[in-house]
Amino acid sequence: MNTFGRIFRISIFGESHGPAIGVTIDGVSAGMPLTVNDFLPDLKRRQSGAKGTTPRVEEDMPEIVSGWMNGHTTGAPLTILFRNSNIRSGDYDNIAKTPRPGHADFAAHVKFGGHNDIRGGGHFSGRLTLALVAAGVVAKKMVEPIDIEAKVISVGGSCEIEETIDRVLEQGDSVGGIVECRANGIPVGLGEPFFDSVESVISHLAYAVPAIKGIEFGSGFASASMNGSRHNDPILDATGRTATNHAGGITGGLTNGNELVFRVAVKPTSSIGMPQNTHSIETDRVEELVINGRHDACIALRVPVVMEAITAIALVDFRLLAKFRIVSI
Amino acid sequence: MNTFGRIFRISIFGESHGPAIGVTIDGVSAGMPLTVNDFLPDLKRRQSGAKGTTPRVEEDMPEIVSGWMNGHTTGAPLTILFRNSNIRSGDYDNIAKTPRPGHADFAAHVKFGGHNDIRGGGHFSGRLTLALVAAGVVAKKMVEPIDIEAKVISVGGSCEIEETIDRVLEQGDSVGGIVECRANGIPVGLGEPFFDSVESVISHLAYAVPAIKGIEFGSGFASASMNGSRHNDPILDATGRTATNHAGGITGGLTNGNELVFRVAVKPTSSIGMPQNTHSIETDRVEELVINGRHDACIALRVPVVMEAITAIALVDFRLLAKFRIVSI
Amino acid sequence: MNTFGRIFRISIFGESHGPAIGVTIDGVSAGMPLTVNDFLPDLKRRQSGAKGTTPRVEEDMPEIVSGWMNGHTTGAPLTILFRNSNIRSGDYDNIAKTPRPGHADFAAHVKFGGHNDIRGGGHFSGRLTLALVAAGVVAKKMVEPIDIEAKVISVGGSCEIEETIDRVLEQGDSVGGIVECRANGIPVGLGEPFFDSVESVISHLAYAVPAIKGIEFGSGFASASMNGSRHNDPILDATGRTATNHAGGITGGLTNGNELVFRVAVKPTSSIGMPQNTHSIETDRVEELVINGRHDACIALRVPVVMEAITAIALVDFRLLAKFRIVSI
Amino acid sequence: MNTFGRIFRISIFGESHGPAIGVTIDGVSAGMPLTVNDFLPDLKRRQSGAKGTTPRVEEDMPEIVSGWMNGHTTGAPLTILFRNSNIRSGDYDNIAKTPRPGHADFAAHVKFGGHNDIRGGGHFSGRLTLALVAAGVVAKKMVEPIDIEAKVISVGGSCEIEETIDRVLEQGDSVGGIVECRANGIPVGLGEPFFDSVESVISHLAYAVPAIKGIEFGSGFASASMNGSRHNDPILDATGRTATNHAGGITGGLTNGNELVFRVAVKPTSSIGMPQNTHSIETDRVEELVINGRHDACIALRVPVVMEAITAIALVDFRLLAKFRIVSI
Repeated sequence: MNTFGRIFRISIFGESHGPAIGVTIDGVSAGMPLTVNDFLPDLKRRQSGAKGTTPRVEEDMPEIVSGWMNGHTTGAPLTILFRNSNIRSGDYDNIAKTPRPGHADFAAHVKFGGHNDIRGGGHFSGRLTLALVAAGVVAKKMVEPIDIEAKVISVGGSCEIEETIDRVLEQGDSVGGIVECRANGIPVGLGEPFFDSVESVISHLAYAVPAIKGIEFGSGFASASMNGSRHNDPILDATGRTATNHAGGITGGLTNGNELVFRVAVKPTSSIGMPQNTHSIETDRVEELVINGRHDACIALRVPVVMEAITAIALVDFRLLAKFRIVSI
Repeated sequence: MNTFGRIFRISIFGESHGPAIGVTIDGVSAGMPLTVNDFLPDLKRRQSGAKGTTPRVEEDMPEIVSGWMNGHTTGAPLTILFRNSNIRSGDYDNIAKTPRPGHADFAAHVKFGGHNDIRGGGHFSGRLTLALVAAGVVAKKMVEPIDIEAKVISVGGSCEIEETIDRVLEQGDSVGGIVECRANGIPVGLGEPFFDSVESVISHLAYAVPAIKGIEFGSGFASASMNGSRHNDPILDATGRTATNHAGGITGGLTNGNELVFRVAVKPTSSIGMPQNTHSIETDRVEELVINGRHDACIALRVPVVMEAITAIALVDFRLLAKFRIVSI
Repeated sequence: MNTFGRIFRISIFGESHGPAIGVTIDGVSAGMPLTVNDFLPDLKRRQSGAKGTTPRVEEDMPEIVSGWMNGHTTGAPLTILFRNSNIRSGDYDNIAKTPRPGHADFAAHVKFGGHNDIRGGGHFSGRLTLALVAAGVVAKKMVEPIDIEAKVISVGGSCEIEETIDRVLEQGDSVGGIVECRANGIPVGLGEPFFDSVESVISHLAYAVPAIKGIEFGSGFASASMNGSRHNDPILDATGRTATNHAGGITGGLTNGNELVFRVAVKPTSSIGMPQNTHSIETDRVEELVINGRHDACIALRVPVVMEAITAIALVDFRLLAKFRIVSI
Repeated sequence: MNTFGRIFRISIFGESHGPAIGVTIDGVSAGMPLTVNDFLPDLKRRQSGAKGTTPRVEEDMPEIVSGWMNGHTTGAPLTILFRNSNIRSGDYDNIAKTPRPGHADFAAHVKFGGHNDIRGGGHFSGRLTLALVAAGVVAKKMVEPIDIEAKVISVGGSCEIEETIDRVLEQGDSVGGIVECRANGIPVGLGEPFFDSVESVISHLAYAVPAIKGIEFGSGFASASMNGSRHNDPILDATGRTATNHAGGITGGLTNGNELVFRVAVKPTSSIGMPQNTHSIETDRVEELVINGRHDACIALRVPVVMEAITAIALVDFRLLAKFRIVSI
């Protein structure tokens, strides 16, 4: 479904080549200073234009249509709208007949009986992350002074990021990457087990982004190769500070006062310039498919600001819910 | 929170050394054949006793206290209770003063103001997975004929599982492992993007188990090193069958008709026989901690049946929700 | 919160004098024929202009910004936007200092720390029912062939509706009324006890409209004066048809195959032309308040189409959920 | 469904003549003093035995099976179990063939394909309110010092309650009644419009009880006969105190600092001693039905403590949610 959250609740709508994409955020505190300018830096980070990202440039100017007055939130649902301006439907005409490998085309066609908007991936487009980033801007304000920073740490298995992308661009290919997100200043005890562990909620949100295929916290998959005597993080003082941080700041699903660390694996962009094979509905045979238009060589480059957004979104609810857990509050 | 699911909805309760652990399952169809015996094989798979798992043996006999009559479900909430019989509170006396590294002890103490039940980890105990497995038995029946199978594929980074555990046991240490889960016979188009992608819901449930520190679908983290021309799975026919399965059966958050494949990283058991350092609340110094009692050397061995359970739980809702997506139904 | 529903899920946003009011509907089946014209008849019924309703006339033209393509729903969230065009902020300048009796002004001021949009009642305005009516149009299509009809059955305690309103208008006063809603063609067994009885969900939605102060099903409050021998509806045949319908078509919280009947009490419009007393925040004294602008003499006249909408919205989810209750489906 | 609430969340299970009835309460603060004795006064008020109520007497001793230790809540889900001891299945043998007028028998039979537990009404039994009352005891503690009191104000349309019941008992008939609930000490601004107005949530919970057929707040249905100049409650001071309370303490869906007042209409007990007509599935004809066993003459007598419980349950969440609405908190 398209709504997430218990108190701070976001509802996302829109399709890549429809009239608009947007998000309604419920549960925003009233009286929070907020201007359109507050959104621009993160929106710019998500935007296309950099080397290795698609040259489709939308202005992506947010329009606040509710929940806002005189530079402050009103406490009513905050709806932010982005008009889709740079729509080129013609580029996508052959999708209906030949589902693109790696994309949702085939599965979505079956699920929605062919009625879904296929242009640009429709509701499955990475463009929907625009709404996540906008919600993230609000969420970041609500979790202050928690500090969240994400960056690409490798592309195609290499830390030589620019070189790798140059090479891939030349080939008309694409490449995957790893994004790491770190958050500091988080109070001890956030998270709502059994089901809403910190890992559960962050991974739920991270996997809403179709390009994500893996997520690990702390030492993650490397933990599986360790012994307990090495993996256990010795506690050093009454604040819960640990000597190592194999747990990535989370024990028993709760934040433990150390840096929150997670990494996501971003698959290579599915749309590539090279010819590919796929089944044609028209001829009922495997045929060669060439995807027109230009696309991101490495979608991972646009993911860091999205991971910051989902971390902030997850933390807002956790911080609000934590207030109730002790009887005196 | 302790409830999960939209239509098929499970609510888990209990603490490791409290009177009972249990689960209430709402949204069960009426008239489904079900007996206590149906639970026993999966419960036995989860249970302790095997080499490398704790010798604490509970009988773990399920008592169905509602939603059931004459061998069939009634459609009312199905509540299954497990009495805790083998309780040894004395073993855990020092936890309150010296939080165990790797456990929830410290974070839970802060979160609940010291009022949480610390015995055996309380509500954070792996024993809570008993309730998940019980719910999984019901869910597996509801998703028939989908077939779900999970197994340990490596321990401590090695496929020589028994040898590794023997070595670790000798050292009084513990070790992590990787569990792989595969499901076949899944219809095309399950999953409810934007937020409830198949990966989102399965990872949400998987991370409810405190020992899980990573989850990846299909090629997962390896995808990040691939080019798109290699990672994209060519579609072969009208059923959506692909030549490779780097996507792990999920594109755009939807099942695509191929085998669903995911792997979880299970950290080494936090309780180990070797002495460890931790901060003592009493002395406000780092002190040596020895954890009494016997514990699992490799908790990963008990995880496969839990991953099967959470996969089945996720699929029930997805299958029910998919029925609505086309107007004719 | 501003989201309602389990599968068919509506999220409402907007303030009376902000840029726009709207609704996002998630869980709409794909491929359902839908045009802007489909909305106009119900929107017109809700609209002002008739005798006894406010002369503020908005065009109320729905703009579908997502979930729709070529005259059909796509299965993605359907967002419908209404621009607020006829905004007169000046009329409401004194609200901040002297909260209007009967309105949310005082309570909302406290709740939102004075940051809420007070113009026209802001998010508490009856104008928000526009979004409900739009969602109702979609819901009515989804519950076909169920037929839902509501009408005003009395105003100010009298069935002489037009006469009563003429008299009240002359006095600059307002008056309450009773609206009755009836639905036919509902299958037996809708409703999801324990908590989601048909009465529970319909009353929950009805009371979202601030003017509603009472709701009763079947004989309702009159039931409290009856004996069981009279109140019980004798069942006549295998379809569940009953000789009387004191239950209003609902027994045990489930639809029983008879006509669904409920009535709501609509309070008199709170904004009246006559001077009233209220506490002034400025002078800290009770002062006389005169509300400028023109307002509905009888808001009940606009409520029938809203009650039809909420009934349809409730029934969509009930009908979808009922499909799961028997194991064979 | 059988779960209600956003933060303070109750899940109800059980059938009248199954092994047990119970409730799991999630979101309870840790460290709250609680003993089994705390439950007894309210349980006793709900219990049968008084004149006009059924002589089936259960011990109704609550067993706390999780979330509790050493006289305090632990913060983990609190599960309270009531064993059903006084089960007489034989009394209900003919229900399957001849659905009882006024009961859920017919509708539930259709909904659950005949698989539901019909004994004593099964999951539709008024006995399920036991779980509500238990949850109410916990909720009342959490909303202290708010004071909630409900009582029967009329039976069969008369305030001569005992006389009316004597007469009805003699006839083997039953009779309805009105219960009024009042709550004092509620802060201004509770309630979460648009959908979760105070009236919405209280009525949702009230209608979970199958015997409730009407609910009104403040002047309720009488409001529909009033003019605005009379109905509007003049605000007297900065605390929001009003000269009259036609609004029942709620304006715009928010508490306004005045006494919360609502009334519910309780229908006459459906099970009566007098013979009734109903359709027989066996003979496909209308036949005379005599219901064996003894039943409440006036179920309304047991409803006050249930209305107090649902009011407290509603207020817990409202109070927790209100804390977030202003940015400084």
